[in-house]
Amino acid sequence: MKIDILSLFPEMFKGPLTQSIVGKAIEKQLLDVEVTDFRDYTTNKQRHVDDTPYGGGAGMLLQAQPIYDALDAIAAKNDGLGKVILLDPAGRKFDQKVAEELSQEKHLTFICGHYEGYDERIRERVTDEISLGDFVLTGGELGAMVVIDATVRLLPDVLGNRESALGDSFSMGLLEYPQYTRPADFRGMKVPEVLTSGNHQKIAEWRNKEALRRTYERRPDLLENYELSAQEEKWLREFKTLEVNDDE
Amino acid sequence: MKIDILSLFPEMFKGPLTQSIVGKAIEKQLLDVEVTDFRDYTTNKQRHVDDTPYGGGAGMLLQAQPIYDALDAIAAKNDGLGKVILLDPAGRKFDQKVAEELSQEKHLTFICGHYEGYDERIRERVTDEISLGDFVLTGGELGAMVVIDATVRLLPDVLGNRESALGDSFSMGLLEYPQYTRPADFRGMKVPEVLTSGNHQKIAEWRNKEALRRTYERRPDLLENYELSAQEEKWLREFKTLEVNDDE
Repeated sequence: MKIDILSLFPEMFKGPLTQSIVGKAIEKQLLDVEVTDFRDYTTNKQRHVDDTPYGGGAGMLLQAQPIYDALDAIAAKNDGLGKVILLDPAGRKFDQKVAEELSQEKHLTFICGHYEGYDERIRERVTDEISLGDFVLTGGELGAMVVIDATVRLLPDVLGNRESALGDSFSMGLLEYPQYTRPADFRGMKVPEVLTSGNHQKIAEWRNKEALRRTYERRPDLLENYELSAQEEKWLREFKTLEVNDDE
Repeated sequence: MKIDILSLFPEMFKGPLTQSIVGKAIEKQLLDVEVTDFRDYTTNKQRHVDDTPYGGGAGMLLQAQPIYDALDAIAAKNDGLGKVILLDPAGRKFDQKVAEELSQEKHLTFICGHYEGYDERIRERVTDEISLGDFVLTGGELGAMVVIDATVRLLPDVLGNRESALGDSFSMGLLEYPQYTRPADFRGMKVPEVLTSGNHQKIAEWRNKEALRRTYERRPDLLENYELSAQEEKWLREFKTLEVNDDE
């Protein structure tokens, strides 16, 4: 996969792109990332990339010209831009499904805005507006890193067995069950007995039930799209009964 | 504000913590960030921080001991830990309200998980579990950076006029209206005439209407908690009529 990033703060990517899974994917040549400082494409002497908004108001807006020219240069070099992604609060919400979709692409180009906003005409070049959630960030850089991390870890051969994506939350439709590792007793807190019993069927059952319990308690909305087994339906009734008793 | 971060990948923070708004806040001494590599707190010779899960299964889990000991050291040095935040898909969803809440705190401590997961007993030390959204990241680092960026820009004196937080999406309850800056004609795309008219009332009206239109088209859910003015109700009826005509 090829990823291009347009940013005024290329230094921000240095750590995140060399460490961890994204760094490993680049090392293994499964991924090629290029960060372009679109300030290099300004046509004015002062190298300004922003200007005041038409109609007045506080703040500065990114101008269309440097971003258009940077995109043109990237397109010429790469035979196109692939999906052109803008991180914007008005975009569709990023989730695991969007990450899976993006992981099927050969080329992604991210435009990272900054300052107050950007000239509306920049949207004309964008194919996908994506929002991380209902909060405001200083710029698009962190959002791009999040989307890249979630997407790249789904590429074939990126994750080893060690970090397998299979048991992930959301990949099963339920939140993850509680997990424990050594020691069995840490500062007086003990591992649930079933997990050290060696009884694999009981362990699988316990995990299934606790994953369901956590999902029911914290994210009941996830159960709306989840197909319950007969056993899971029984457990769910049990949780609900417990709750009623707690309330009394 | 003091922020402590526990991470196995301290290098990841170098770019994001020195650039942009967070970097400026540190420069202005409005913010002090310390990243602790909790691998320094392992008590085994191999400096392992993870181990296999009790009950079997793929992947490795972060052990409780290095994180507990790192937290103890930070608490001793800082007279406590403030809010202890774990980025986890089972946490409450991060949004602008949570950012505002966190921006009121004096001290935040982030625990960044990695690998398959972590020992459940780590949650005992956590005061706030926060989820960025329904997607899976390689580790908690990027999530922590996002929460820190959204939170720090709300601290007094962090944003200059240039980047004022006032006109933000969400701060008004509507998405942002389209904005334009020079040139008035860019590659044949023109700025809407009203914005160059000099008529401030007309400009304010146009912006209000376009913000409402964008919110209605892209995030109608935001309107459920938004109190419409009489004029906005009229515009909304107009948008709905347009839609019906489009369908015919």
